[in-house]
Amino acid sequence: MNGPAAVRYDAALHAWAYLSRVAEPPCPELAAFVERVGPVQAARDIWAGAEPAELSSYVGARRGLDCGGADLDALAARDGRLLTPDDPQWPYLAFRSFAAGAGSVRREAREPLVLWVLGPARLDEVADRSVAVVGTRACTSYGEQLAADLAAGLTDADFAVVSGGAYGIDGAAHRAALACEGTTVAVLAAGIDVPYPSGHSALLHRISLTGALLTEYPPGTRPARYRFLTRNRLVAALSRATVVVEAGLRSGAANTAAWARMLGRPVCALPGPVTSAASAGCHEMLRAGTAELVTRAEQVVEVAGRCGELAEEPEHPGTPLDELGEAEKRVYEALPGRGGATVEEVARDAALPPQQVLGPLALLELSGLAESRDGRWRICRRE
Amino acid sequence: MNGPAAVRYDAALHAWAYLSRVAEPPCPELAAFVERVGPVQAARDIWAGAEPAELSSYVGARRGLDCGGADLDALAARDGRLLTPDDPQWPYLAFRSFAAGAGSVRREAREPLVLWVLGPARLDEVADRSVAVVGTRACTSYGEQLAADLAAGLTDADFAVVSGGAYGIDGAAHRAALACEGTTVAVLAAGIDVPYPSGHSALLHRISLTGALLTEYPPGTRPARYRFLTRNRLVAALSRATVVVEAGLRSGAANTAAWARMLGRPVCALPGPVTSAASAGCHEMLRAGTAELVTRAEQVVEVAGRCGELAEEPEHPGTPLDELGEAEKRVYEALPGRGGATVEEVARDAALPPQQVLGPLALLELSGLAESRDGRWRICRRE
Repeated sequence: MNGPAAVRYDAALHAWAYLSRVAEPPCPELAAFVERVGPVQAARDIWAGAEPAELSSYVGARRGLDCGGADLDALAARDGRLLTPDDPQWPYLAFRSFAAGAGSVRREAREPLVLWVLGPARLDEVADRSVAVVGTRACTSYGEQLAADLAAGLTDADFAVVSGGAYGIDGAAHRAALACEGTTVAVLAAGIDVPYPSGHSALLHRISLTGALLTEYPPGTRPARYRFLTRNRLVAALSRATVVVEAGLRSGAANTAAWARMLGRPVCALPGPVTSAASAGCHEMLRAGTAELVTRAEQVVEVAGRCGELAEEPEHPGTPLDELGEAEKRVYEALPGRGGATVEEVARDAALPPQQVLGPLALLELSGLAESRDGRWRICRRE
Repeated sequence: MNGPAAVRYDAALHAWAYLSRVAEPPCPELAAFVERVGPVQAARDIWAGAEPAELSSYVGARRGLDCGGADLDALAARDGRLLTPDDPQWPYLAFRSFAAGAGSVRREAREPLVLWVLGPARLDEVADRSVAVVGTRACTSYGEQLAADLAAGLTDADFAVVSGGAYGIDGAAHRAALACEGTTVAVLAAGIDVPYPSGHSALLHRISLTGALLTEYPPGTRPARYRFLTRNRLVAALSRATVVVEAGLRSGAANTAAWARMLGRPVCALPGPVTSAASAGCHEMLRAGTAELVTRAEQVVEVAGRCGELAEEPEHPGTPLDELGEAEKRVYEALPGRGGATVEEVARDAALPPQQVLGPLALLELSGLAESRDGRWRICRRE
């Protein structure tokens, strides 16, 4: 807090950067303290060991780390920004659900203290019309194709596609959104300068050019198992709905879905072959009733979109017989395909009095469905 | 009613056979008349044109068909029997649901007048522990495999497998039940002597040797579209639950499922790839909430079986980390995979005071998950 960086950056920004690292996020005790005294005073007190007693065990290990300036340097070198709750772009509507009681259930159910962001997308706007497309890293080609179709369809409907930047479903969703020139957002479980997974460095870079890469972790933070779980809540919070494309019985996607439910957001899941382990988690959610079955993007739009954005009903294939009345159908069924039957024979087979088959026969002849020769009737086959 | 057959057969049986053909089943007016005056009197009155006025239009076309004796001959030649409501094997419990109000909804929602049966299975016992496995004729190999797996699993659980004898899902279900030496029942939409589809003649014959072939239509009746729909109600009625394996958007299986719902029986559907038209009908039912998603036989047993026959929960794959407490997990995640970290470094990364990482480190070492060399800790990888 004494280094030259404190001079180069605004005091509040520098304080936020320091606070972002001083406790493992999210830390409700830290958030409460910052809210009470403001970021500059909070940083100063923690640095000096003068924080409230209930906060000490959370900040004790890292209070001496004075790398806020270096972190902001690293961010600036990448053209990034540190988004803080006082910024007009802070997606406060999306995060409001955390305040609405969710925090009482789990310690982690809190809005982030700050967000480290690369990329031009405005998070407040993204969160207003976005869908999380998530799933297993160990996806099948079926799942990969579905994720891409879904992301493309959502992009067409002007939704941003939010995901976790991982291999498998996440990557397929991000790539398809980019290919359709849509907005896509990757929420990371590591520092903004730690490309993870490393095989997605180029993809993450492309996302940052048109959409956004974001994380609540300060630069240099390594990904860790619990950070993925904690990160998932932001994927859910920044989306109007969460769609699980493929998930095994033990999958992070189920965790994201649980966060979405906790935040009161709709959860959808795509079914797959029951023989596919990669769909077992989806089927489990669908059986438990914790997710709604969807098969295409329009159905997701229906739950994530504005009131009245309804998916079209699938067209049921029809036949010329659909337009016939009951009596005509019954007479039609009683007609032989070959040879021919007299009116009396048709009537008997249809179990109708002869005078009640004459009208239907005439109508069937007019429709081209029946023909008569020498007083014998039969079905008229058309190519 | 005057031919020699009337002498060869019991008068009541002969009357039932005549009544079975005199009106297209099911015919509520005929059923009511038979219930009032008994089968012999009813047959005599209709033959003489002395039936109640409301019945005339239903029996007018066929009252002169005196082939009850020939029908019974045809049945006897195949070792079959004509099952009537006064028979102790009549599945009256299964058919009771028709009486429970369903008849008021649709004219066809009636129990059959009689059943023409081939095969040794007792229908009252079958109906007590059976599941209908139905689906599209145009099934995929995926659907065929599922139908077979399901039928085999149900057979193992002592359920009879009821279906419609058709190509595709029906056939796969029947065949698997036979292969497992289970009881399987095919409900036909034609006369018992009209093998339909003809490619299933041998299969239907095999079913009749150990299970049952049955139909409400008298011998010689040709299958017709409306007879399939009417037949479907018996498939549903003779089963504790109906499972749709694969169904297109326009499929008879959806009709069977609708009958099952109307009769208050559970309906299950298996999901499939959303890209498969053969699963579209299943997905539609699952979305509409008119069917419950199932992925294997045990889950069907759960809805169709006795109280307490519960499917085992799928085993969630575990890792040694599952048994660790929160602090141990956090410390584990903070350990480097290569090199090594001092206790202070681990504490900082885990955001815990150093004295709180010593216990977890010791426990991790005991569990074989961490190791220390020269005061530096790291993850211990196991093959």
